[in-house]
Amino acid sequence: MKVTVSRKAHFNAAHRLYRKDWTFEKNQAVFGKCNNPNYHGHNYELIVSVTGEIDPETGYVMDLGDLAAIIRNEIEDKFDHKNLNMDVPEFADLNPTAENIVVVIWNKIRAKITSDKELEVVLYETPRNFVTYKGS
Amino acid sequence: MKVTVSRKAHFNAAHRLYRKDWTFEKNQAVFGKCNNPNYHGHNYELIVSVTGEIDPETGYVMDLGDLAAIIRNEIEDKFDHKNLNMDVPEFADLNPTAENIVVVIWNKIRAKITSDKELEVVLYETPRNFVTYKGS
Amino acid sequence: MKVTVSRKAHFNAAHRLYRKDWTFEKNQAVFGKCNNPNYHGHNYELIVSVTGEIDPETGYVMDLGDLAAIIRNEIEDKFDHKNLNMDVPEFADLNPTAENIVVVIWNKIRAKITSDKELEVVLYETPRNFVTYKGS
Amino acid sequence: MKVTVSRKAHFNAAHRLYRKDWTFEKNQAVFGKCNNPNYHGHNYELIVSVTGEIDPETGYVMDLGDLAAIIRNEIEDKFDHKNLNMDVPEFADLNPTAENIVVVIWNKIRAKITSDKELEVVLYETPRNFVTYKGS
Amino acid sequence: MKVTVSRKAHFNAAHRLYRKDWTFEKNQAVFGKCNNPNYHGHNYELIVSVTGEIDPETGYVMDLGDLAAIIRNEIEDKFDHKNLNMDVPEFADLNPTAENIVVVIWNKIRAKITSDKELEVVLYETPRNFVTYKGS
Amino acid sequence: MKVTVSRKAHFNAAHRLYRKDWTFEKNQAVFGKCNNPNYHGHNYELIVSVTGEIDPETGYVMDLGDLAAIIRNEIEDKFDHKNLNMDVPEFADLNPTAENIVVVIWNKIRAKITSDKELEVVLYETPRNFVTYKGS
Repeated sequence: MKVTVSRKAHFNAAHRLYRKDWTFEKNQAVFGKCNNPNYHGHNYELIVSVTGEIDPETGYVMDLGDLAAIIRNEIEDKFDHKNLNMDVPEFADLNPTAENIVVVIWNKIRAKITSDKELEVVLYETPRNFVTYKGS
Repeated sequence: MKVTVSRKAHFNAAHRLYRKDWTFEKNQAVFGKCNNPNYHGHNYELIVSVTGEIDPETGYVMDLGDLAAIIRNEIEDKFDHKNLNMDVPEFADLNPTAENIVVVIWNKIRAKITSDKELEVVLYETPRNFVTYKGS
Repeated sequence: MKVTVSRKAHFNAAHRLYRKDWTFEKNQAVFGKCNNPNYHGHNYELIVSVTGEIDPETGYVMDLGDLAAIIRNEIEDKFDHKNLNMDVPEFADLNPTAENIVVVIWNKIRAKITSDKELEVVLYETPRNFVTYKGS
Repeated sequence: MKVTVSRKAHFNAAHRLYRKDWTFEKNQAVFGKCNNPNYHGHNYELIVSVTGEIDPETGYVMDLGDLAAIIRNEIEDKFDHKNLNMDVPEFADLNPTAENIVVVIWNKIRAKITSDKELEVVLYETPRNFVTYKGS
Repeated sequence: MKVTVSRKAHFNAAHRLYRKDWTFEKNQAVFGKCNNPNYHGHNYELIVSVTGEIDPETGYVMDLGDLAAIIRNEIEDKFDHKNLNMDVPEFADLNPTAENIVVVIWNKIRAKITSDKELEVVLYETPRNFVTYKGS
Repeated sequence: MKVTVSRKAHFNAAHRLYRKDWTFEKNQAVFGKCNNPNYHGHNYELIVSVTGEIDPETGYVMDLGDLAAIIRNEIEDKFDHKNLNMDVPEFADLNPTAENIVVVIWNKIRAKITSDKELEVVLYETPRNFVTYKGS
């Protein structure tokens, strides 16, 4: 019996969408107001879902306290109250679009989840815009 | 790396559930209070999700501004503050159940999304009732 | 010790904003797309709040089951799945703006609440637009 | 055209996470504060989703009023305002983790849905923790 | 310039509504299914609001981190994952209705807020039922 | 009959909490992680409420489309996708705490609302932290 367990979390961060190898004008044409050189920011909401068999001993797929701790250590401690472009090494040369952020988050959490389980991450950039990555 | 990008939107509309080729009594038996000949209405909430590869140039699967514009042009401008039965040609002879509405919306948006991408539409008729269509 | 107890409820209805004694053009200028002669509609959300002393016998200001029944009898049964302009007598000659609807609802519930208690009604027409009436 | 129709519902219940065949200390080590022998509780929120073909007669996959009645009879009447461990027979010897609860709910609703339809149940234990079961 | 700062928090607890000095039948007549002797439970949501002058030094009415710590120490640590009737001394002889709980919470937080500030507490027992206390 | 009409809006911005006339250490002691020199950010949610008499001609206290336009012109166009400290003149020498932001917003909207009406502004910095200002 495969069940999916999901945990919500959140972090608040600044970012700017742009490529260092493009001119300001080209960045402006593609990324518009998201290219503000002084940055803007979001309350990012995260839903991390792990799918696996129920352990008949505990009735858990995975202790959600353990999952919450992984999210806190891997994501919240590194992303919360940060400037994604300047403070988070993964985005030193990677444009922090929601799509790129969700893949980075998925990879960081995937490394901490046992391989018999599947992982999906949903990232809300605003209440109306969100992205989903399942690893393929 | 396939990522899904999602955008929420909404429109407010009146509708009546009934078939013109049934008697009032049969419509009442099947559709109950939704068959009110004077119509009732809803704040419809929409989640449009597009799945595709991340463009390595931009870091986008698709510019969410472009997706918002498609939803505005194809759906909001045609459905918002309308009577679905009377003002929207697709429902002239099609009962505007949530299921039929979501298929109509999917078809209208599908025509504007490039064929290498997958599309899913979720339509909330009320906060407690919603439907989902993926195109098959 | 005065405490406020609040109960949420909802109804789905069609309406049209217009005055019968104005021309279509004047109604269109003032009410815009809300003047659609074929009606549009909303999921109205309601928050009814009653303020009074805690009854030391029961620990209740008022049994919320009783309040829910008043809302059901006075409002939901009369407004839900209706056309406000055509099916609800109070709006036969009263423009069903959110402001007018909330006053009508307040008056109907006020008649069923004992006079030692205060009443406030909040009415959401959409998730982003709402009105509040306290009776004065 | 396969569409998914979804209905939200909820019940309020007390529970305790523990195994009768473990010592209190072992239960405390594994389940922590959820092992409180005096119980704690939750407002469980439920999303029941049924996938099937749209009936061309009615425009429904399934009458959501019928689905709501199934949820009320099978789940709400038996789980709401109950102690899951003491009042619900299925948990007499089964630890009422969210994972085990969602499987029990899925089985009870599955028995009432025709076999040509697929079923998914999502159970929120808190606004931040939820589980999903699709039957395999 | 008086501003109100508000902080949301939550706790999960079991409770039973009844008076020890009433018969089971009388409790059942007044409190219905809330009188289940085996308890039921809720995810209680809390909004604590403090009104006062903005400190021109800091721009804060009150550090929301300090307010969050007061809520954690005074309420969450004592109410979360508890049986309110059995584990929380204030309810040993006080019926834990939402009204009585919100007054108890208000008194506990009031003792930790400086007297130049006003306090309001909102307590959600379910998403549809909530109570508010301002101290008079 | 005085009714309150309310409109929700939102903007996404970066900010840093600090005083230019304090050392980094003192700012860090008071503002903690909010003092990140590279900024962080939020999805700010706004509820603007205007209280006044219902105009018997229109049934409106105020056209919510007009109120939405005021919010867009005065707030969204100036704050959205900005760095509050660097891009918004009001915060050049004013610490952009939620309390100071809500007062600035209230003053900007107050100037556009006729004096017979009352104004209240609620500003959510995160889903769990918000502030309210009524002008006194």
